[in-house]
Amino acid sequence: MVPHLTTALTGPLLELEKRFLDHATEIERWMRVQWQDHLPPFYGSTDLRNSGFKLAPVDLNLFPGGFNNLNDAFMPLCVQAAQAAIERICPDARQLLLIPENHTRNQFYLQNVAKLVSVLQLTGLDVRLGSLLPEITAPTTLELANGSTLTLEPLERRGARLGLADFEPCAVLLNNDLSGGVPPILKGLDDQWLIPPLHAGWHVRRKSIHAAVYDRVARDFASVIGIDPWRINPEFGVCSQIDFHERTGEEHLADEVDRLLARIREKYREYEVTETPFVVVKADAGTYGMGVMTVRDASEVRGLNRRQRNKMSVVKEGLEVHEVIIQEGVHTFETVDDAVAEPVVYMMDHYVVGGFYRVHTERARDENLNAPGMHFKPLAFETCCSLPDCRQGPDAAPNRFYAYGVVARLALLAASIEIEETMPAEAELAA
Amino acid sequence: MVPHLTTALTGPLLELEKRFLDHATEIERWMRVQWQDHLPPFYGSTDLRNSGFKLAPVDLNLFPGGFNNLNDAFMPLCVQAAQAAIERICPDARQLLLIPENHTRNQFYLQNVAKLVSVLQLTGLDVRLGSLLPEITAPTTLELANGSTLTLEPLERRGARLGLADFEPCAVLLNNDLSGGVPPILKGLDDQWLIPPLHAGWHVRRKSIHAAVYDRVARDFASVIGIDPWRINPEFGVCSQIDFHERTGEEHLADEVDRLLARIREKYREYEVTETPFVVVKADAGTYGMGVMTVRDASEVRGLNRRQRNKMSVVKEGLEVHEVIIQEGVHTFETVDDAVAEPVVYMMDHYVVGGFYRVHTERARDENLNAPGMHFKPLAFETCCSLPDCRQGPDAAPNRFYAYGVVARLALLAASIEIEETMPAEAELAA
Repeated sequence: MVPHLTTALTGPLLELEKRFLDHATEIERWMRVQWQDHLPPFYGSTDLRNSGFKLAPVDLNLFPGGFNNLNDAFMPLCVQAAQAAIERICPDARQLLLIPENHTRNQFYLQNVAKLVSVLQLTGLDVRLGSLLPEITAPTTLELANGSTLTLEPLERRGARLGLADFEPCAVLLNNDLSGGVPPILKGLDDQWLIPPLHAGWHVRRKSIHAAVYDRVARDFASVIGIDPWRINPEFGVCSQIDFHERTGEEHLADEVDRLLARIREKYREYEVTETPFVVVKADAGTYGMGVMTVRDASEVRGLNRRQRNKMSVVKEGLEVHEVIIQEGVHTFETVDDAVAEPVVYMMDHYVVGGFYRVHTERARDENLNAPGMHFKPLAFETCCSLPDCRQGPDAAPNRFYAYGVVARLALLAASIEIEETMPAEAELAA
Repeated sequence: MVPHLTTALTGPLLELEKRFLDHATEIERWMRVQWQDHLPPFYGSTDLRNSGFKLAPVDLNLFPGGFNNLNDAFMPLCVQAAQAAIERICPDARQLLLIPENHTRNQFYLQNVAKLVSVLQLTGLDVRLGSLLPEITAPTTLELANGSTLTLEPLERRGARLGLADFEPCAVLLNNDLSGGVPPILKGLDDQWLIPPLHAGWHVRRKSIHAAVYDRVARDFASVIGIDPWRINPEFGVCSQIDFHERTGEEHLADEVDRLLARIREKYREYEVTETPFVVVKADAGTYGMGVMTVRDASEVRGLNRRQRNKMSVVKEGLEVHEVIIQEGVHTFETVDDAVAEPVVYMMDHYVVGGFYRVHTERARDENLNAPGMHFKPLAFETCCSLPDCRQGPDAAPNRFYAYGVVARLALLAASIEIEETMPAEAELAA
């Protein structure tokens, strides 16, 4: 089932999807050439928003946590892409240590880890799980709802190498986004592949850096297929030196919001969009949908009440927020049984391996669906994202998924360039 | 549906498949490391024989002609693998010229070409077809049974480059096995990728060279998972200076057949196999199942009648046969509704992308199913070959297909080494 797309656009519908379809050959060649110059991340996922007049990524995750939500029919794609990723990054690897997030009770997350383990095993790796949790002092087996189990083991640091008891991995794969900073046990590792590199963690990453790189990628790409880059690129602004508790920086933030809303209004006029523009204010280093606020008018950020200020001031791992990105909001016009549905695309190496919709009944189409405690229903993509079919309409499932895959790969490419450009100097690495 | 496996083995059944299953991680790592040292062919297919006690490749085709027989569900795998192949061999390619066999009336073959074109287009290539047929002097459109069309165009040689009218391809892909030798128009090409290299054609290739390389690959591999290499490797011998018309070399051939049968008998005793051993005598440079003969006793090659001698003496393109390979026959113990079924595995780059069974009702289990005029019924593999499942028995579909995929990749690896080792010297290339 493909969600219904009802947009408020009065201009030509599906023009963007048609453009992707007509230029599929050029698009694929362009992608191929880009990946000659940039190392694809090991894996990644992108949250997309589809308003019909605009299809854009709003987040790029380098520690994807929903492999369990993908269609099992595409497991072979996943395994093949994982083989490519391993070959590219650590071709000789025999043993791999996977370090998951510290969620030992989140069944959905644990199933993600289990899926990831099974994919990695099929690439020819012995895979074991090392936990950053201090309470894991001995191998601890967790039961999964589907009857399988996962065993978390305490990490052991031996000189410049990380391992487990009787386990000397060649490669360490992080499925932990390092929001709380790099734990000492992960610092100064040598002679082991650490995937992705540490500076891909949220202790270093900034949404605004990613957005700036994506802006360049989207412009390049848009010129290749002759579209306005705005159709795939959310406008954004940055605001630093904010303190929500102390109410400093509030005016600056309001000005930025106002400026961005004005730009969006102008674009809406150009495209005859009658919807109300909005922006999303997010912690620049945040994740897990924490520290996120939807704003339709600059006045809203001036008069935040205590609850709203508390909500915005702290993100995952209790970190304080002092920098925010203000991102153009993209309406979600896809629905399943009247519930808002947002696509999430999964990639390994530079291949799209599947995706799913976050389907939620209780949220409006201009609200964030990835918020703490949100229980979305995952709806796996029914077909893959790599088989556009010119004989069908631009909105047929293979073609809509193809469009998702194209935009998701643009975001992945931006992440790859972002990781290159934010690589710390040797001196910093040694510190 | 997976064919029924009824073997004459009195020893432990499925021991080989179980061994593959138990060692899947080591197998995948071993494969990964091998492909670091050897360039995978662009594509290939392998004919396998499964006697239960032995699972072995009997042919490796570098110009596969049955992509139309693969399960459509695995098209995404095919596209992904083709992307990898293009990236590895001709990453910047924009336009590709595909040169098919000269079969303009074989609907099955034409559908193979059409499938191949659609896969290649999805990797970001403009694909057009150039024909070696002299009668193609203008673009000629062929109607396919499924309603689609293919347009063959006359090749145009411009200096050291090959193309079509208004088409300057970066890459030339051969789906023509060059049995009749290299046409002058293909000689001395420069500044264009020619895939596979010319010396992969049957004008140069010898089954016996491939068998000798496979022998080494099989031994290496067998030692990794602790099996007798004979379980995956047909014994073989070579006999040259044969002239079937003149009846020269007949005694030498009979001696070789005798020697080989004796070796096989010994192995059958070791494995408690009660079947009658047989060998297959094949033209060393042949293809298309021409010049093939099944022999159960050396006396059979001594007393060939005129019809048999005629049949053995000429292969595709009317070439005379003077060298033969004598290959251990592997019984086909897989059946579908009592019809003999032989697996064929398809690969692109080093990935298995699917396969099918040749199902034939009129042949015995020790006869060749790929013979001229044979109308086999293709039965596409129902699952992929990359997802072994330890929770199921060694004969469950995913596990049987996994075993096929492993052995097929061994044959592909041997072909890759064979192409390396038979590479002509620069001087010969320039000639």
